[in-house]
Amino acid sequence: MAMTGILRPGHVQLRVLDIDEAVNHYCENMGLIETDRDANGRVYLKCWDEQDKFSVVLEPSDRAGMDHMAFKVHREQDLWRFEANVKKFGLDTQKIPAGELQGCGERVRFIAPGGHNIELFAQKEQVGNGIPTTNPAPWREDVKGMKAIRFDHCLLYGDNHDDTIRLFTEALDFQLTEQIVDGDTQIAAFLSCSTKAHDVAFIRNEEAGKLHHASFLLGSWEQVLKAADIISMKDIPLDVGPTRHGLTRGMTIYYFDPSGNRNEVFAEDSYVYPDSPILTWTVDNVGQAIFYHSRTLVNSFMGVSS
Amino acid sequence: MAMTGILRPGHVQLRVLDIDEAVNHYCENMGLIETDRDANGRVYLKCWDEQDKFSVVLEPSDRAGMDHMAFKVHREQDLWRFEANVKKFGLDTQKIPAGELQGCGERVRFIAPGGHNIELFAQKEQVGNGIPTTNPAPWREDVKGMKAIRFDHCLLYGDNHDDTIRLFTEALDFQLTEQIVDGDTQIAAFLSCSTKAHDVAFIRNEEAGKLHHASFLLGSWEQVLKAADIISMKDIPLDVGPTRHGLTRGMTIYYFDPSGNRNEVFAEDSYVYPDSPILTWTVDNVGQAIFYHSRTLVNSFMGVSS
Amino acid sequence: MAMTGILRPGHVQLRVLDIDEAVNHYCENMGLIETDRDANGRVYLKCWDEQDKFSVVLEPSDRAGMDHMAFKVHREQDLWRFEANVKKFGLDTQKIPAGELQGCGERVRFIAPGGHNIELFAQKEQVGNGIPTTNPAPWREDVKGMKAIRFDHCLLYGDNHDDTIRLFTEALDFQLTEQIVDGDTQIAAFLSCSTKAHDVAFIRNEEAGKLHHASFLLGSWEQVLKAADIISMKDIPLDVGPTRHGLTRGMTIYYFDPSGNRNEVFAEDSYVYPDSPILTWTVDNVGQAIFYHSRTLVNSFMGVSS
Amino acid sequence: MAMTGILRPGHVQLRVLDIDEAVNHYCENMGLIETDRDANGRVYLKCWDEQDKFSVVLEPSDRAGMDHMAFKVHREQDLWRFEANVKKFGLDTQKIPAGELQGCGERVRFIAPGGHNIELFAQKEQVGNGIPTTNPAPWREDVKGMKAIRFDHCLLYGDNHDDTIRLFTEALDFQLTEQIVDGDTQIAAFLSCSTKAHDVAFIRNEEAGKLHHASFLLGSWEQVLKAADIISMKDIPLDVGPTRHGLTRGMTIYYFDPSGNRNEVFAEDSYVYPDSPILTWTVDNVGQAIFYHSRTLVNSFMGVSS
Repeated sequence: MAMTGILRPGHVQLRVLDIDEAVNHYCENMGLIETDRDANGRVYLKCWDEQDKFSVVLEPSDRAGMDHMAFKVHREQDLWRFEANVKKFGLDTQKIPAGELQGCGERVRFIAPGGHNIELFAQKEQVGNGIPTTNPAPWREDVKGMKAIRFDHCLLYGDNHDDTIRLFTEALDFQLTEQIVDGDTQIAAFLSCSTKAHDVAFIRNEEAGKLHHASFLLGSWEQVLKAADIISMKDIPLDVGPTRHGLTRGMTIYYFDPSGNRNEVFAEDSYVYPDSPILTWTVDNVGQAIFYHSRTLVNSFMGVSS
Repeated sequence: MAMTGILRPGHVQLRVLDIDEAVNHYCENMGLIETDRDANGRVYLKCWDEQDKFSVVLEPSDRAGMDHMAFKVHREQDLWRFEANVKKFGLDTQKIPAGELQGCGERVRFIAPGGHNIELFAQKEQVGNGIPTTNPAPWREDVKGMKAIRFDHCLLYGDNHDDTIRLFTEALDFQLTEQIVDGDTQIAAFLSCSTKAHDVAFIRNEEAGKLHHASFLLGSWEQVLKAADIISMKDIPLDVGPTRHGLTRGMTIYYFDPSGNRNEVFAEDSYVYPDSPILTWTVDNVGQAIFYHSRTLVNSFMGVSS
Repeated sequence: MAMTGILRPGHVQLRVLDIDEAVNHYCENMGLIETDRDANGRVYLKCWDEQDKFSVVLEPSDRAGMDHMAFKVHREQDLWRFEANVKKFGLDTQKIPAGELQGCGERVRFIAPGGHNIELFAQKEQVGNGIPTTNPAPWREDVKGMKAIRFDHCLLYGDNHDDTIRLFTEALDFQLTEQIVDGDTQIAAFLSCSTKAHDVAFIRNEEAGKLHHASFLLGSWEQVLKAADIISMKDIPLDVGPTRHGLTRGMTIYYFDPSGNRNEVFAEDSYVYPDSPILTWTVDNVGQAIFYHSRTLVNSFMGVSS
Repeated sequence: MAMTGILRPGHVQLRVLDIDEAVNHYCENMGLIETDRDANGRVYLKCWDEQDKFSVVLEPSDRAGMDHMAFKVHREQDLWRFEANVKKFGLDTQKIPAGELQGCGERVRFIAPGGHNIELFAQKEQVGNGIPTTNPAPWREDVKGMKAIRFDHCLLYGDNHDDTIRLFTEALDFQLTEQIVDGDTQIAAFLSCSTKAHDVAFIRNEEAGKLHHASFLLGSWEQVLKAADIISMKDIPLDVGPTRHGLTRGMTIYYFDPSGNRNEVFAEDSYVYPDSPILTWTVDNVGQAIFYHSRTLVNSFMGVSS
């Protein structure tokens, strides 16, 4: 198998201030599907074209932000290999028993140098995408709103940026695909564990452990337009877009969930391989790197969830 | 690195009856770029967004068809590992010296059970995609015709089908993503070495070593329409499309190069991971599996290049 | 007002063999909305973005086909002006009282030389498009299936072709926009009463009064793909497409309602003005004229409803 | 003919500070084609899919802005009818002899109450769209940059707003399609002489005779994205977009020519008939009326050319 080790972002657990508003947002506006709830009041959601039981966990809280981001590894043995790598890198790891999240196997948790809770797991209950595996249709008709296809990546702000990038590239086998640099200082790093232009990205920041956004995939630029229309029709707070990113070429729009967590829906327009050159954006061109059309950063976009 | 081993289809060498007509077709109609010629009269082409020196080699010949399909592996050591695997599988392998194809490193060649020449290589000169790696634009303005993004996959017809699939899945680490079955008999197998729904596909056939088509990626369904328009504007023989495949969900159109080699350009609408379920199409539904809208196979589509 | 006289196709009354199946097809598959039924068992439908009460009337019958096609004129006085024109042209006219179709004003009916019942009316109840006229959203979220925007045109087969075209251009002020010719013989005529490439079209035929298809507008080529997917997902008999027409540049797909009436959904890609040149397709190129990509007429497409 | 009287915006004459830069912008960036120059240094341009000789005239000047906007009428007699209407409305009219603009017939000029030079003409040399009128292809391959299809409309700022709207609706037969109102005061009026949501629009303003933008048609939202990319790739000053308008539903992007004249390219998503309801946007919702997604007016967008 060419795809080995860490496969993809498996889920993100987001803290939300009002669970009903949050469920309504992710399900009615974005098209995710509720698959379970647990005794802690957490609600489990998946995008329609995901096979695993959940990719988003909404956790009732008194502050917004990301509790943790979890990556799915290919095989049980990968879990222990990466746990060893992380320990060797110098971080403590913690085992979270199977079932702590319903349908999810044992997880290995560690705090990345930038302050984010990162987890790995090898097992999650597969509930399917609602389409038979024999003679399947290309899509489901009953998906709502933006019809998000999958949870795709997170962008995280944290301190100890260089250590975080070292952790992901050296201990976790991620590939640096694109970066923003200010002279010798890397300001942003886009990291892939697949052929996607990014599975996670990090921004150098003074404060630790911040979530910039959780991102979900759409199928085309026309679907980004429909998402933009829905944002206005449903009076969802828009941040920026629709536009294209310079970084990753993605076609994108940003907005906020009712708790103030930033969401992105986007359509891909790029791919990488291990032998792809690293693409570098210089800080004098940071506006274009982020928002390719306006070539200007906006203040609203710089904020993060607590 | 999650992506390891065999990364992607690196190139296809196609036999063509008239080299000038062929170069005109692939460059003017499809947008490939000529990067070199050699003493054997072979012409080297690449798609605009590929980094490597070539992904198509046109070889003057008195009959159409595929000379060989070559996959790029991640590292030199992968080359020898897969060579050993192939030998262990029971096939002879042959080393082709670096430089036999200009800019390409040493290749390992073997004849797959279905009669196709398959090659692996670890090294190819990178010439870039014509866009700077610092502050890159999302696309090039000077690309012609259909603006094919990359060589994507081949569909091959051959005998000893089950052995071929065993070779690719057991010795070469490909993943079976989708299949057509007639009872217990697998008629078609779609194989991935990445997260693409297919990097190569095989159809069970009585004759060995046939090429059904070489396929190239486009960016959207609108680009498939423009390709379709160009096919008619340039009086290129159409086979089938534009339409969608049931298999892989791809949005597609088929046509022939001047030598009678079938080409496809298509836009992706799917992806797989190692834990994705295998999708199975039953033979009673083969029309829909291939052409999702008409649900009918057409005779023209069944033919192959010699 | 630059738009005067005959404004647009106002409705088509189609004969259907099973009213429930027909309603299900036009509403669930195509997205039309039922607005009324009458004592004759007729069901009234409108597309979501139409203001008038109905644009399709389904009439229970023992044979498929078109009962009549009706055009809306701008003002009452236009109705009488065109009635006089039609009489002067040599045809009998008939007045159908207001309310014979619910919500529709008085209609002037005549049989065009090709054998079709054509009607004009000036008044129809406006029920709106379900979006407020103050601060309106760009679209409705509750539209089903293909989400057809409006009834757009019909293509009719009939005898006495030249007289029909004379009637529409001389008495009814339509403009010939495109045609297929075989030497001096016009085989097909596309006629506009607006800036659309066609509001009605006629094909020279030996038999009188046949319906080839009733056509409905979609918003983009991507919507044509989704319609094509729905055709297969709902097991609707496909005729041809998705493809582009040479004539009118339209992006199109054809299929049949449960009674065998041919439907088209299409996206526009052209427009005309009174000073636009007439575009002519020669019979040796008729395949490309109709199906721009395949450049081949298919037998299925030549048939008509009884 | 249902389309009578004033057919469409025929051309706009824009003042530019540097003729070479302007020609480069409109031709290389936007895809217009130069068709003539005259002794006054004016350069004549057309969009590829227009039949008439020119739709944009670039006039060397020391200040940017609009010299005049001209509408094409259907027949010579319409010219004199509208001239009489305008005089009856109380405005002076001026005849400009045929040939003053090369290839253009006699023009009737008047100054609208808001201070803009408006002209009517019935005749302009037709040079065609470069595609044969027999068996035409759907598009031309040699069009550059954004590939603008046609000059579509202007948005003008002026004083005496109510009189201007009265002139266009009463004397020139335009239809009010959409408006922004502040209580009883109309702030903006969108006017159509066709089935387009607007052929010209006016904003109430203290200063007379200002140009907000000249707008050009594209074929799809994907083409708006490519235009947006080109704006950044060519370092053209962006104003706003890509986004959707609430008013007219248009999918749009705004930017500036090298002289500071604002341009729009957009894709249509709406149409009107004489019996369409007037759509009204209230001033408290003006942000959404203009920029449907951000729901916020930006300062840059409020400025006008001198």
